[in-house]
Amino acid sequence: MSRVEERLGLMGLGLPPVAAPVAAYVPALAHNGTATTSGQLPFVEGQLPATGKVGAEVDADLAREFAALAVLNALAALKAELGDLDRVTRVLKVTVFVASAPDFTGQPGVANGASELLGEVFGDAGQHTRSAVGVAVLPLDAPVELEVTVAYE
Amino acid sequence: MSRVEERLGLMGLGLPPVAAPVAAYVPALAHNGTATTSGQLPFVEGQLPATGKVGAEVDADLAREFAALAVLNALAALKAELGDLDRVTRVLKVTVFVASAPDFTGQPGVANGASELLGEVFGDAGQHTRSAVGVAVLPLDAPVELEVTVAYE
Amino acid sequence: MSRVEERLGLMGLGLPPVAAPVAAYVPALAHNGTATTSGQLPFVEGQLPATGKVGAEVDADLAREFAALAVLNALAALKAELGDLDRVTRVLKVTVFVASAPDFTGQPGVANGASELLGEVFGDAGQHTRSAVGVAVLPLDAPVELEVTVAYE
Repeated sequence: MSRVEERLGLMGLGLPPVAAPVAAYVPALAHNGTATTSGQLPFVEGQLPATGKVGAEVDADLAREFAALAVLNALAALKAELGDLDRVTRVLKVTVFVASAPDFTGQPGVANGASELLGEVFGDAGQHTRSAVGVAVLPLDAPVELEVTVAYE
Repeated sequence: MSRVEERLGLMGLGLPPVAAPVAAYVPALAHNGTATTSGQLPFVEGQLPATGKVGAEVDADLAREFAALAVLNALAALKAELGDLDRVTRVLKVTVFVASAPDFTGQPGVANGASELLGEVFGDAGQHTRSAVGVAVLPLDAPVELEVTVAYE
Repeated sequence: MSRVEERLGLMGLGLPPVAAPVAAYVPALAHNGTATTSGQLPFVEGQLPATGKVGAEVDADLAREFAALAVLNALAALKAELGDLDRVTRVLKVTVFVASAPDFTGQPGVANGASELLGEVFGDAGQHTRSAVGVAVLPLDAPVELEVTVAYE
């Protein structure tokens, strides 16, 4: 078991199975030292635990947990692509899209659910750049979608 | 004629002229083995065939075709930058922004119009990572905007 | 003083202090010849000069100035990461998120505030690819958020 997965385990978390590959694109792709995930939704066993806009149907605290769930799916996709998450040398970038009610401006707090989990499992190598934006609506009415880019060796 | 353009031709498609360069930025940029396009709109001969939000003024099937049109513009921009599309060794990433009515959640279906065309013209090398999000509104009220990143040699 | 900062000074502009580092992520990150910023807001001395959606509470001309302010913050973040902005050999990519009223379609004009400033301070090396999209709402109700990717040596 990789160190990264060990740390997840100590937090009571595990990697979900990777979402079934879709014909038209792939969950993650490694090229020349950099690996990127497709947009990840907060699936739990293939289902979204809740849907809707943050600040309306979904509150900020729940959305923050969903951001962490989406990171778990991103890590699972990266593991499937890289073979071992311990090959990750640095988390470079996280882009967090938050489906937002027009008056919800707490996207950074939601995105912290992703950033803090990455910091906990990767330590200093988990310190990344980040953009968090509030979008109109996401696929399947998910509250959060995010993509992760890492350096690997 | 490149193999990529030959395949497009067999599908009855051709590369449009590249949108006139704007002073402030460029349509595509190659650097160190990776080339990225600017956000591409579904222009046909310099015009948007329709405008508005998907799920309201524009339906999902039409938006899917527009995603394919935007890919053609992206390929034209990449050809202008790289000289020959056969230099592309892998499509790495596609980000699809869909101007969406608040209750439209079919962004992946729209984005498939882009992903499938890339798969058809590049084969295995066209398998990419992808994010699809629903945004409030796009430049010129376009229904779809997308950017494409490729590896080249 | 670097040439880039000298040019800013001739335009009457200076680099702001970098926003205090947040525990969960970093303002900018350099890796293997490419440096990226986190999403930058148009802070002036730690405050947003105005908030709201462009096309509603904020007009397009003001938003264009805010895009330039956000670029200054991006340059400050890159300087803190790289030590010297003259290490930048090319601006590769700018992504501009404009918090937009649903009928505001002038995102490119807003984004020009960012692109033109980069062109003025970096010259030919400031010619970049760009995406500009209209999103529902941004952190702290900022009118504009943008991220910048550069090549450096």
